[in-house]
Amino acid sequence: MSYDNDNIFAKILRGEIPSTRVYEDEETLVFMDIMPRADGHCLVIPKTPCRNILDAAPGQMNACMATVQKIARAVREAFDAEGVTIQQFNEAAGGQEVFHLHFHVLPRREGESLRPPGQMADAEVIEGHAEAIRAALGESG
Amino acid sequence: MSYDNDNIFAKILRGEIPSTRVYEDEETLVFMDIMPRADGHCLVIPKTPCRNILDAAPGQMNACMATVQKIARAVREAFDAEGVTIQQFNEAAGGQEVFHLHFHVLPRREGESLRPPGQMADAEVIEGHAEAIRAALGESG
Repeated sequence: MSYDNDNIFAKILRGEIPSTRVYEDEETLVFMDIMPRADGHCLVIPKTPCRNILDAAPGQMNACMATVQKIARAVREAFDAEGVTIQQFNEAAGGQEVFHLHFHVLPRREGESLRPPGQMADAEVIEGHAEAIRAALGESG
Repeated sequence: MSYDNDNIFAKILRGEIPSTRVYEDEETLVFMDIMPRADGHCLVIPKTPCRNILDAAPGQMNACMATVQKIARAVREAFDAEGVTIQQFNEAAGGQEVFHLHFHVLPRREGESLRPPGQMADAEVIEGHAEAIRAALGESG
């Protein structure tokens, strides 16, 4: 399987289409999922191309996981979440829809199920959630 | 949140309760989930204690992800799977049931949904799946 330079996340990385960014470092970018299954649902991706974990280099994996940890701690604080669920899908049969490696970070609260997939959220609501995560990242370093 | 030395995976690591092991290296252990949501569903854990990604050290995360990658590639081969789903749960609200860091690796095939959680599988069937993964690991190094 090869990498398609025109996938949506490649375009987000190049700034060709908008995204609500919450964090970035040299190797990774974090932005909000536009179809959030929980308040604060965001995505961690490497800045360099790879399709998923089946072709990712160790450096891409490690950089992503360091950011996943940082974001998991931040969303817990930002949304007073009692738990965090991480999902990572590989190939269409594995649930993958955009073919650039990504990790879903989902803040979870007791008794609240994930919302069904495929429901767009209001852009202002998403921006508010992004701001809460940015604030938590600022506070926790 | 603290680490409980008597959690089930700590007991599996100490050999106090049985498990169907498929792979191990210095830092990680892989064994079959006894309630598989797909044929070949297995779990990757670090050999050293930590509760989940909220308290894991970078070395534990990186070691686990290297093994997750290795196992993802092996189950794809072993089960002729078109995709792989990775799930990782943190705290009860996040879906975690055993409080030792673990990553679920689920081989996926087109058109086949995950089975509902909580269904024990036959031990001989699980052993057969473990053997297929061990063989794939042997072939691919």
